[in-house]
Amino acid sequence: MKQIYLDAAAATPLASDVLKAMLPYFQKHYANPSSLHKKGQQARQAVEDARKKVAVLLNATPEEIIFTSGGTESVNLALQGKALAVRKGHIITSPIEHPAVLETCRFLERNGFLVTYLPVDRFGIVSPHDIESAIRKDTILITIMYANNEIGTIQNIIKIGEIARQHKITYHTDACQAGSLELNVQKLKVDLLSLNGSKIRGPKGTGILYRQTGIALQPLLYGGRQEFGLRSGTENVPGIVGFAKALEITQRQRTKENQRQIKLRDDFIQKILKTIPGATLNGHPTQRLPNNINLSFGGIEGETVVQCLSLEHIYVSSGSACSSGTIEVSPVLKAIHALNPRGSIRVSLGEDTTKADLERVSMVLQKIIVSLRQVT
Amino acid sequence: MKQIYLDAAAATPLASDVLKAMLPYFQKHYANPSSLHKKGQQARQAVEDARKKVAVLLNATPEEIIFTSGGTESVNLALQGKALAVRKGHIITSPIEHPAVLETCRFLERNGFLVTYLPVDRFGIVSPHDIESAIRKDTILITIMYANNEIGTIQNIIKIGEIARQHKITYHTDACQAGSLELNVQKLKVDLLSLNGSKIRGPKGTGILYRQTGIALQPLLYGGRQEFGLRSGTENVPGIVGFAKALEITQRQRTKENQRQIKLRDDFIQKILKTIPGATLNGHPTQRLPNNINLSFGGIEGETVVQCLSLEHIYVSSGSACSSGTIEVSPVLKAIHALNPRGSIRVSLGEDTTKADLERVSMVLQKIIVSLRQVT
Repeated sequence: MKQIYLDAAAATPLASDVLKAMLPYFQKHYANPSSLHKKGQQARQAVEDARKKVAVLLNATPEEIIFTSGGTESVNLALQGKALAVRKGHIITSPIEHPAVLETCRFLERNGFLVTYLPVDRFGIVSPHDIESAIRKDTILITIMYANNEIGTIQNIIKIGEIARQHKITYHTDACQAGSLELNVQKLKVDLLSLNGSKIRGPKGTGILYRQTGIALQPLLYGGRQEFGLRSGTENVPGIVGFAKALEITQRQRTKENQRQIKLRDDFIQKILKTIPGATLNGHPTQRLPNNINLSFGGIEGETVVQCLSLEHIYVSSGSACSSGTIEVSPVLKAIHALNPRGSIRVSLGEDTTKADLERVSMVLQKIIVSLRQVT
Repeated sequence: MKQIYLDAAAATPLASDVLKAMLPYFQKHYANPSSLHKKGQQARQAVEDARKKVAVLLNATPEEIIFTSGGTESVNLALQGKALAVRKGHIITSPIEHPAVLETCRFLERNGFLVTYLPVDRFGIVSPHDIESAIRKDTILITIMYANNEIGTIQNIIKIGEIARQHKITYHTDACQAGSLELNVQKLKVDLLSLNGSKIRGPKGTGILYRQTGIALQPLLYGGRQEFGLRSGTENVPGIVGFAKALEITQRQRTKENQRQIKLRDDFIQKILKTIPGATLNGHPTQRLPNNINLSFGGIEGETVVQCLSLEHIYVSSGSACSSGTIEVSPVLKAIHALNPRGSIRVSLGEDTTKADLERVSMVLQKIIVSLRQVT
């Protein structure tokens, strides 16, 4: 039976063109980019070409692109980096941020920083007005995600960016789930932006932090002073090349692919809401990621649904996959006051998801929910 | 003309068996190890199998192995992690450590820690007696590298480990250049040990920190609490699988391969010292890495020799390659009071280095030195 993978928000397969781009750097152009000889210079060239490519895609300059080991490191470098460079102050965020943001904020709270967690509405939207009201004289950083990893809600980040600029406060956005959205940092008006390779069919263990020129950051990793002194460690050349290729592909095809996914998504949601009594959609009906579907089924645990679907070779997620397999009530669903916070599943589409896949999933899901309701 | 790569201390090509081990994890078993479904569990299994494999090779338990994004991160996690968990105290190290150690120590000094940089002898050896004398009541950490990245000198790390244990002080060793030496952490008596994938024909962007059970560390990266809460971020599954395979291969063949390299190394050194007037060997004559040769030629800049050899398709290094292409007098050569600290080249052998390669290099090198001396 065909396996149907619908967990693209947790991880994506490497695109074939990405693997193809990476392969020469494993065994042929394998030198250290810091080596002065010709092979080292070739590796350096590959890294700098990748940096330029990413910069163009983000409408940034190459010096503003820092390669990291992934989204979590990018977010930590942005938040710890900014806060520890300033040494004290106030930070504005929301309770539905990814753990990389929330746990870093908690670390900063333990170290004397003050953090405001703004409420979100029932769709998961942070009000730009609330942000403006929360600004204090000592506010040093606003960090509001671009799109939520669980419920797919897309924030009004341009509006937030405008407010941050008016008040001259640094604005970071975690865009790890938003690789297929608009990433022009000038349009978005962000100062710091985190991206992750493994969510856009790029390699695991890769990411970038966009850092606007002039924003001072304290490094997390000290050593050979690579990445403009902000991220020491030998550059992961194949990973960097692969990241740039993945971002290029994702951004090139995003308009078309997003349209396709939105249609699949909305048809699936309509079908489920019609055919499964008590099913509800979590998150915003339209202001959401093209590939995100988050559903609750009254009285049924999300984890049980995930396991039942897995037996049918259908792979979805309950809550976020980024918490090391720990199962607890999702803070995101709690924050939006979801009716059934333990009963949610996340279906996240990929490039290879077809209409037929979703038709099968919808049928299997109906059967599973009926069976589970008979048991409980 | 055949390219002769003799910069294995800076970077190594991926072993074919390592690439083969990694490939299934790019496009087939690509799930997030934290996902609860079957594909997630398969990815989890791959990570935990790799962890067990590394643990066996180090004579450690799986819980003592933390996967990181490379040697620099491992070293930073060990040093910052230990120091910031304790909050204050005294650290003992040496001036010939890798920049990952030295720069982290400087960061810790700026944050109130006291660091003693012990002198080394003319071969680059730190005296265990000096270490014992430097211990204070508030000493929290000794960090002395296993083998030096520039001159290849191997420290008396077991002796240092014994002293650290007697005084109940945490002992970290940077083993990033020592992947082909004895890595049994029980024999070595280390508490923390950093290793790097890219120096042992494993993937760039991978490393481990061995952390003895009971040693408290403050994480650098906050988020999904992967790696026992010590290193958040989605696991780089192909990288982790590749790291474990590379370490397995390196350790399996180390006795035989080290013997082979020692013979090549010593023959080459003898030939150069005999045929090039004024040539000197930096580092210890015998207590040195099997693949490390570091030579000075009176009055000639190392960088110039590197460039001349590069034109002949021979790739060696001057000083360390890990300083982002910056050229300055090597602190290692300064610390051993080398006669000609700007005139050194590092020739580091790899598994594919042959006797014929080194014969050609020795001839070309003789010619280059003669020519350069005529110019200057």
